[in-house]
Amino acid sequence: MGMKKLFKEIRGSVVAPKGFRASGVFCDIKRLGTGKGSDKGQKRDLALIVSDVPAAVAGMFTTNQVCAAPVRICVEHVKTGIAQAIVVNSGNANACTGKQGLKDAVEMVRFTERALNLPSGSALAGSTGRIGVALPMDNVRAGIIEAAVGLGSSVKHAAHAAEAIMTSDTRPKQIAVEFKLGDKAVRIGGVCKGAGMIQPGMSVTGKRPAALPLHATMLCFLTTDAAIEAKALQAALNEAVAQSFNRITVDGDMSTNDTVLVLANGLAGNSKFQVSGFGFRVFQSALSRACLELAKMIVRDGEGVSRFVTVRVSGAKNFAEADAVARAVANSALVKTSWHGGDPNWGRIIAALGYSPATISEEKVDIGYSKYRSRKILWSLKHGQPSKAAFKELCAAVAPKEFDLHINLNLGKASALIYAADLTEQYVEFNKGDVSNPASLGG
Amino acid sequence: MGMKKLFKEIRGSVVAPKGFRASGVFCDIKRLGTGKGSDKGQKRDLALIVSDVPAAVAGMFTTNQVCAAPVRICVEHVKTGIAQAIVVNSGNANACTGKQGLKDAVEMVRFTERALNLPSGSALAGSTGRIGVALPMDNVRAGIIEAAVGLGSSVKHAAHAAEAIMTSDTRPKQIAVEFKLGDKAVRIGGVCKGAGMIQPGMSVTGKRPAALPLHATMLCFLTTDAAIEAKALQAALNEAVAQSFNRITVDGDMSTNDTVLVLANGLAGNSKFQVSGFGFRVFQSALSRACLELAKMIVRDGEGVSRFVTVRVSGAKNFAEADAVARAVANSALVKTSWHGGDPNWGRIIAALGYSPATISEEKVDIGYSKYRSRKILWSLKHGQPSKAAFKELCAAVAPKEFDLHINLNLGKASALIYAADLTEQYVEFNKGDVSNPASLGG
Repeated sequence: MGMKKLFKEIRGSVVAPKGFRASGVFCDIKRLGTGKGSDKGQKRDLALIVSDVPAAVAGMFTTNQVCAAPVRICVEHVKTGIAQAIVVNSGNANACTGKQGLKDAVEMVRFTERALNLPSGSALAGSTGRIGVALPMDNVRAGIIEAAVGLGSSVKHAAHAAEAIMTSDTRPKQIAVEFKLGDKAVRIGGVCKGAGMIQPGMSVTGKRPAALPLHATMLCFLTTDAAIEAKALQAALNEAVAQSFNRITVDGDMSTNDTVLVLANGLAGNSKFQVSGFGFRVFQSALSRACLELAKMIVRDGEGVSRFVTVRVSGAKNFAEADAVARAVANSALVKTSWHGGDPNWGRIIAALGYSPATISEEKVDIGYSKYRSRKILWSLKHGQPSKAAFKELCAAVAPKEFDLHINLNLGKASALIYAADLTEQYVEFNKGDVSNPASLGG
Repeated sequence: MGMKKLFKEIRGSVVAPKGFRASGVFCDIKRLGTGKGSDKGQKRDLALIVSDVPAAVAGMFTTNQVCAAPVRICVEHVKTGIAQAIVVNSGNANACTGKQGLKDAVEMVRFTERALNLPSGSALAGSTGRIGVALPMDNVRAGIIEAAVGLGSSVKHAAHAAEAIMTSDTRPKQIAVEFKLGDKAVRIGGVCKGAGMIQPGMSVTGKRPAALPLHATMLCFLTTDAAIEAKALQAALNEAVAQSFNRITVDGDMSTNDTVLVLANGLAGNSKFQVSGFGFRVFQSALSRACLELAKMIVRDGEGVSRFVTVRVSGAKNFAEADAVARAVANSALVKTSWHGGDPNWGRIIAALGYSPATISEEKVDIGYSKYRSRKILWSLKHGQPSKAAFKELCAAVAPKEFDLHINLNLGKASALIYAADLTEQYVEFNKGDVSNPASLGG
């Protein structure tokens, strides 16, 4: 908690740290046919984020067995620990595109390196959008050239990059924080996107660790001017993602493209740190905070979302069971629709507990509500029995746009939380799409 | 297949078999305050099904760890292998009602036995509706008396029972079949209900077998005049439920109250059969057919459902993986909304395969569509690559209200199917409820 005062939020997003430039352009990835290489009022769809000098890199990737071409490339590249640029398109996931897709992803990276006059092995790629459609490479190349020419380090440049990675997002998602290491100011910036197909479960290798529970595309690109070893950077990112992007769900669907990348270029001039020590702990704290704020922006801007619910499970036998319970509740169609209706229906919640893979004991379960992060809980159920709280009072507790749901299994000491969303008519309407207008269809 | 001609569908529902009577009355379980013990245009809410003589009994029950009081009673009673009457209320699940709930369920059973002048241990109970509310026992007792007085064996009596067990169902669900055993005509009848909180996973003991995958209230009551040993009856029911009610999903939520009960009173006069032999095989076939038809009625009448999709997975390494894949697809919010929109979006389907616990290989996956039970498949994906089928053609394949989705993993020989439904705005609207009118709120 004392850590918080060690850093402050600042403006600037991914260009807040020293030595980073960004841009975002419209190159008509969806082939709407409204002109190429220029912005004619269309949402931008290709972003570049570039460091002035080679940077340490770390990444976390979807554990979906169906994995997009750019993700495959990044998984391999990140192992080298070094990179300098990230190119990202929206409107097309470049997933399930076979050999051509892999060729296109490589070409996207190589073309970016040439456009930026960087050596081979400098650029990473990300994609998000509809699955199974080949990338329009002429448009991509034209977009990369325009984006390279347009690079800059103003707030506006970062905002263009944040816009370019959006798909069904209604607003851009950005953050930057600053903290001191010795006498040096160190900064971390980030942009992210994601609104549907959101229940990330990412790992470094893109392979699912046995312990990782099952979990849209969410993309997140972070920059920092910290001087940090690549291994330490990866360790910090693992921890930050575990407590943020891997703890959110909008609709329970895990994407083929989830990606988090961080570049650390060392230009803050701090003495380079390793995995331990005070420097690392402060950096970890700041990176975790940046990731958590970005992750919560995704849930709050989830497709059709009207309520943001933090599901807090405690008293489980172990973390895996706490996590399983939290996800069963957070992904139950009936629980999510009751949130939408402002109905404090604990019956649906306890039913979800009962069919979760975790062991529960009905007569021990407590269920209650509070304001976000408040410990003042109004219990609806205590030891499996309805409390004396009036229905009206319970309705008032679940009426706000944001509230916390507390579930105590009273069986052990493990806990887990999930940032979750309600299920609305708007979610259904958006995702059923309009087949008479294929270009409008989502991922 | 040849079995089919061995039996025919007939009228009569649960009173089609010899020696069964039924009734359904309105006794205001929800306390709407519109009068007790009489039908004033309200939907009936208490049913009785009674055999003239003691019958063999078998049952299957929810494996939800949170389990309603009447379910607990039935699990124990069914072990005795004998019963004569079933009393069922809708409008209140009698789940999470603690010791009082258990007392009320016992009283419901005992009061029914007294009203019917049957010995203790003759009656079974079922409940469905909102969780966590105490049963209004005065209304229940008044209802049982009226229902006992009103018992009869006409089609109308059975229809009243079918109506009385409905909750959010828009129509009653009934079936009856007849077949020959030697020179004796044997009949099986059944009623069921269920529309939301539907993904049953039932077992005999209500305990979850290790192999049973995780999966509303659905209730089903079957009658037969076959002479059959209780053990053979249970074996036949296990198989029938495994291929029917345990293969459906509306919203992926498993209820606290799922129950299937069958009474076999022997009045057909066939020579009593055991688990093997021709008689058993014919009986199994007829019971399986009755259960399957009833199960499909539940999905077709699911809350807000506009499309009925049979998800057929083949080429899996083993049944558990085939089942996991089928359920991941059938319960994906994004896949279900695309069905609603008539969008042949294989990208969302393959993404669901990829995050399922089953092992898949993207470049081997085939995805296609056909009419119900047709082998004429239009492939959208072959070996992980889009087929040449035109988008319009694929849209036409998913436009009907009912179609089959074929997924071949091409990794092995195991297969599984799930009867599934789309996710619509109407589902959300219905289940968000109206907290200003608590009596309107669903289970």
